Amino acid sequence: MDKPGIPRPTLSRLPLYHRFLAQVSEAGRAVVSSEEMGRALNLPAAQIRKDLSCLAEFGRPGVGYEVAELLANLEEFLGLANDKEAVVVGAGRLGQALASYPGFAAYGLRIVALFDVDPAKIGLEVAERPVFALEKLADLVGRLHIQMGIITVPAAAAQAVADAMVAAGITVIWNFAPARVGVPAGIWLESEDLASHLATLSYHIKRRGRKA
Amino acid sequence: MDKPGIPRPTLSRLPLYHRFLAQVSEAGRAVVSSEEMGRALNLPAAQIRKDLSCLAEFGRPGVGYEVAELLANLEEFLGLANDKEAVVVGAGRLGQALASYPGFAAYGLRIVALFDVDPAKIGLEVAERPVFALEKLADLVGRLHIQMGIITVPAAAAQAVADAMVAAGITVIWNFAPARVGVPAGIWLESEDLASHLATLSYHIKRRGRKA
Repeated sequence: MDKPGIPRPTLSRLPLYHRFLAQVSEAGRAVVSSEEMGRALNLPAAQIRKDLSCLAEFGRPGVGYEVAELLANLEEFLGLANDKEAVVVGAGRLGQALASYPGFAAYGLRIVALFDVDPAKIGLEVAERPVFALEKLADLVGRLHIQMGIITVPAAAAQAVADAMVAAGITVIWNFAPARVGVPAGIWLESEDLASHLATLSYHIKRRGRKA
Repeated sequence: MDKPGIPRPTLSRLPLYHRFLAQVSEAGRAVVSSEEMGRALNLPAAQIRKDLSCLAEFGRPGVGYEVAELLANLEEFLGLANDKEAVVVGAGRLGQALASYPGFAAYGLRIVALFDVDPAKIGLEVAERPVFALEKLADLVGRLHIQMGIITVPAAAAQAVADAMVAAGITVIWNFAPARVGVPAGIWLESEDLASHLATLSYHIKRRGRKA
């Protein structure tokens, strides 16, 4: 169902380039070199040139990239200007935090509703979005053709929620539950594995171990 | 100040192995092969064997790893059994969500307090943790020898908070603000770049584009 796209590691760096370019653009700069981007982002300049060559052929040797052109191209490529509607399943603190996270606006994300199974949460408003009963998920996703679902339920419920999202027609899932979920081929899953990141931080705290 | 440690990509996989081993251990299994781990985690078995060889020499060819031994070794290596005290700066929704995130308990994280500059938040309790004024940060971090700081403030305030954490003696920083922050050598920084992850999801929504 899905054609092979840009390599995942390349894709993961494009938003960094986008953010850097947005900053230099705001600062009024017209041209920027891959060397300067590399220094700012702590990446080899050759890597940056290779990544950006996936998008188009610009960047002139010895001159650099036209900031406005490259920025527009990245926005187009990543679909940042498109409005993206999403639902959040799990209206606890994390779901509420994401529903009102200010960093998302620049990327066109619009969370249209939250869902929960807790009668105490159903009917509430979170950051001006309604909280609906989970059994209404398929209806709303189908009616509004929503493509993206964000999972913020406890680990034990994560797989069932992912299944319900896929059944409802969602094709892109962002999972914040501390659990691995499986999805069918053709569904894009990104997991925000906070607990695993914490484990790597734990290692560094242990290594520094001031309190020994 | 910091000796070179385990490679970052290897380190990032160890928590996955730990979680998998905890699951098979709970299921009563005594031995597991790298092939089985590879299938479950969608990683090459050879990669898993190489990663685990950084920790110790176990795993017998044709037999596999002793689950209990490997699990204990990973816990020790990652310092998961050690209590880790942390402070959260930014007592908004995201800070509150992290202070009460259930996935952290298994990794020994204890958030002892939150800090904010908003008089309406100072003095509140979040998941039974106090919210203090930001100017008390250095005092508390110093007295309790806290090593880890979690940043959940708006982008514009992130660098100033990181600087204040470093000045207070914090050596491991977990940044959730949608901004790149700089830290001196010797400070371990992990950034949870939710907005950038969203940009990669945006690309996949665009590619699928049902509404076209």
